[in-house]
Amino acid sequence: MKKKAAYTLAVVGATGAVGTEMLSILRERKFPVDRVVPLASSKSAGSGTSFGDDNLTVKLLTKESFADIDIALFSAGSEVSKEYAPVAAKAGAVVIDNSSAWRMDKEVPLVVPEVNPQDIAKHRGIIANPNCSTIQMVVALQPLHAKARITRIVVSTYQSVSGTGKNAMDELAEQCRALLSFGEVKTEVYPNQIAFNCLPHIDEFLPSGYTKEEMKMVNETRKIMGDESIRVSPTTVRVPVFVCHAESVNIEMEDKLTAEEARSILSKAPGIQVHDDPGQGMYPLQLDVVGTDAVYVGRIREDDTIANGLNLWIVADNLRKGAALNAIQIAEELIKE
Amino acid sequence: MKKKAAYTLAVVGATGAVGTEMLSILRERKFPVDRVVPLASSKSAGSGTSFGDDNLTVKLLTKESFADIDIALFSAGSEVSKEYAPVAAKAGAVVIDNSSAWRMDKEVPLVVPEVNPQDIAKHRGIIANPNCSTIQMVVALQPLHAKARITRIVVSTYQSVSGTGKNAMDELAEQCRALLSFGEVKTEVYPNQIAFNCLPHIDEFLPSGYTKEEMKMVNETRKIMGDESIRVSPTTVRVPVFVCHAESVNIEMEDKLTAEEARSILSKAPGIQVHDDPGQGMYPLQLDVVGTDAVYVGRIREDDTIANGLNLWIVADNLRKGAALNAIQIAEELIKE
Repeated sequence: MKKKAAYTLAVVGATGAVGTEMLSILRERKFPVDRVVPLASSKSAGSGTSFGDDNLTVKLLTKESFADIDIALFSAGSEVSKEYAPVAAKAGAVVIDNSSAWRMDKEVPLVVPEVNPQDIAKHRGIIANPNCSTIQMVVALQPLHAKARITRIVVSTYQSVSGTGKNAMDELAEQCRALLSFGEVKTEVYPNQIAFNCLPHIDEFLPSGYTKEEMKMVNETRKIMGDESIRVSPTTVRVPVFVCHAESVNIEMEDKLTAEEARSILSKAPGIQVHDDPGQGMYPLQLDVVGTDAVYVGRIREDDTIANGLNLWIVADNLRKGAALNAIQIAEELIKE
Repeated sequence: MKKKAAYTLAVVGATGAVGTEMLSILRERKFPVDRVVPLASSKSAGSGTSFGDDNLTVKLLTKESFADIDIALFSAGSEVSKEYAPVAAKAGAVVIDNSSAWRMDKEVPLVVPEVNPQDIAKHRGIIANPNCSTIQMVVALQPLHAKARITRIVVSTYQSVSGTGKNAMDELAEQCRALLSFGEVKTEVYPNQIAFNCLPHIDEFLPSGYTKEEMKMVNETRKIMGDESIRVSPTTVRVPVFVCHAESVNIEMEDKLTAEEARSILSKAPGIQVHDDPGQGMYPLQLDVVGTDAVYVGRIREDDTIANGLNLWIVADNLRKGAALNAIQIAEELIKE
């Protein structure tokens, strides 16, 4: 990207859970912004949002929205990305897309800056931001993979409702309120009650019995880590938590790493906080991680049921590192080029 | 046990979450009861409880409580079991103990009636009831083990607060109420807020980094399934759900079983309900399983990251099959002898 003192940005889906985070993180990290254009569908266009002290009016997303835009951050779902990302790229913007639309496209780099920043340079106008549950896992696993080569991952997730969106957060709160006051529980966003219940169902089911969310963890992990031989066996579960995803991850490696070695490697790695002193009550908790930037790793244990195994508990803010922050970090790398 | 038309039973810890379930399940299943004596510590002795239409007064647990008792159901914690189970056995009762005190004792059978009913006959006055998270897992895995020999299990749990007790259920409700009305959140039962949060911490931590709960899943599984070679790699997690534990279980087998074969084997096995048609929205949910007796299995998927692998989602009512019901089923087997 051509070096500038400041850049013009579009945020597509500016009023959503992730779009809102994007605007606030751009400001927080002092991204060199000349102008921000918040865009949305007709449902939200005309409403207000803010960027720092500036009040902005959300504009209607059209095919003409991207003139003079340097970077277009998309977080408005796959259909919108499929239609408008090529338009934005053609208009000269670099798209950083948070949907799943382009992630597995061979021409589109899929990037987690701590893991594969070198892939950014290969873009042809679109860079994909990975799925939230994948991002936090690869940040935590890449340093171990570099040292001992991970061959297999068995992962079970504990994913918060904010991954679905603001409406899901409202639904969880409303259902709890209703249950605690003997009111009527309504289910609209999820097919089943999420309050005080875990749903082993994220995204659509495929004929194999796995969900699309699970297959994202399989395929995106390989693409980001640049190693098609890594085998991933996932089970993704929605839990009644507002923000932050947690993951119970079992890995098998080619070489042995003790828990202590893993802790030492991870403490020196970028974007990771090791919170692992369970005797002192220290392990990552979703509540503690809300609003923070790092991927937190704890409960690091040797798994002696295999030759070179480890168990880990990985927590990150799915709206930040799992989505908006990772996208802004990609933009930061992009303007460094 | 000597055949009788009806038996005298003591329920130690009669006012607790599990004790209350025991009384109701004895009645529900028409256990041949001559007399039930509810026992508790001085904190609860004198309070009232009921057995069907009968109102009973809870008596103080003493060393003299077990005269003329045929079967003593214990669910009052390890310390009480260590002290009083031998006293009850010496007085001629057969103890069925829900605590962890005697489970790994070589002289004490550890029994899940669907899996190892034959071990009951080996008792010397005490029979141990396994840990809740172990019971539901072995019920679901034993039929697959019998067919294809399971060599390794990787399990992550989603355990409800009722496993901790009534006070934990109150704490979850209170914390939710406080959070939804901007009140003050109090944490007393758990070291951290459980409302809208997952705690990767059940029971005490050991120097290895595993918890006692996790090691119960390792050791009890082997003892119940009668196979010391089964390797279990567990991560146990408390989730903000009132009743029922869920488990994400990955198994490696000596022989291949397709998902369809596993479904067919499990549908014919005792104590299991296969709820596995995700395309139709059918998978086991904690909310649906509350108050039921079976172990529910769904999301059965082949795991092609290993030669002979399967993933499963296993749900059961931890107060019933995970505790009270399993104990009563042991008593039912005992009087059949």
